Amino acid sequence: MSMISDLIRKCRSYRRFFQEVEISHSDLLEMVNNARLSASGRNSQSLKYYISSDDETNRKIFPSLAWAGYYKDWPGPIEGERPSAYIIMVNDTEITNNYFCDHGIAAQSMLLTAVEKGFGGCIIASVSREKLRQELSIPQRFEIVQVIALGKPKEIVEIEPLGPNGDFKYWRDENQVHHVPKRSLEEIVLSIGNPT
Amino acid sequence: MSMISDLIRKCRSYRRFFQEVEISHSDLLEMVNNARLSASGRNSQSLKYYISSDDETNRKIFPSLAWAGYYKDWPGPIEGERPSAYIIMVNDTEITNNYFCDHGIAAQSMLLTAVEKGFGGCIIASVSREKLRQELSIPQRFEIVQVIALGKPKEIVEIEPLGPNGDFKYWRDENQVHHVPKRSLEEIVLSIGNPT
Repeated sequence: MSMISDLIRKCRSYRRFFQEVEISHSDLLEMVNNARLSASGRNSQSLKYYISSDDETNRKIFPSLAWAGYYKDWPGPIEGERPSAYIIMVNDTEITNNYFCDHGIAAQSMLLTAVEKGFGGCIIASVSREKLRQELSIPQRFEIVQVIALGKPKEIVEIEPLGPNGDFKYWRDENQVHHVPKRSLEEIVLSIGNPT
Repeated sequence: MSMISDLIRKCRSYRRFFQEVEISHSDLLEMVNNARLSASGRNSQSLKYYISSDDETNRKIFPSLAWAGYYKDWPGPIEGERPSAYIIMVNDTEITNNYFCDHGIAAQSMLLTAVEKGFGGCIIASVSREKLRQELSIPQRFEIVQVIALGKPKEIVEIEPLGPNGDFKYWRDENQVHHVPKRSLEEIVLSIGNPT
């Protein structure tokens, strides 16, 4: 298997971590630097980043995040299994309000970089934005786009086919393994000129 | 330099190609498969893909695409320098209308896969969507999100700092080298608790 294909397979959404394993500031900067060097719509590059890897700031960020929406009985990782770092992605509205798909490109570049270093993470779009803004004194100029939670993964994530009923919700088994149903290649590749 | 950092540096937006160099269907499928295995908001996986690598279909797609908005005098690559393949990304609205940042994640996964194989491409969001829909008989159910143009790059792309005036527009020199100013890491990393 090619390098990038292997890395993409390893790049799962992780939500439980060895919280005591720190991520160095230089590793976090390399993630952001790889986002920086990725494609940007109209080359505006309006996305900017707050980096947190200290316990005090991490504690300010965590309560603003919602975890794994399908797990109604799980409020998120317990103390000891929380992310050891966060990258908060914001949009500098003084540059543009339209960042096209830059937020996905940048998130994927950062997460692939994290995975190559033995870390992993999760893109969190369900954020209490005003609460987080106040906690961190983020100026109004910067729109909070999403938060990348990062750490040394403590959970196993398995990719599997969709169930026969087409259910795509991820689920956790009795051993805390996180299962992610993925649509088949056949389902997502459409035929040109003769679409389904 | 790490593998992924190197690959991201090589993954530029290319707009001129050796049109005669074909991309195999299996290579194109591997790109889509890597998009398939990437993260998806709420795991909905609503993005689907039309793949074109034959000359007839490529000719139907090309006229619906706008190229390099900052090059007012350049209508796009000439015959012989056009993409040898396209991946048209659509959203299956019967699954969801909210695909979060999946379109960026998927595009980056596909382009990184292309670059590792010696190809390259460009994400094109400026698409005459209704024209393209009619040309390819794409059902209304599928919203056209963007088009990834692909091929064997025929141009050199150089990353450089922003000019002193802060201009971020890319530009082409007399040797047809494409220059892309990128904001500095210092500009895009904000300080927590004490933002600029």
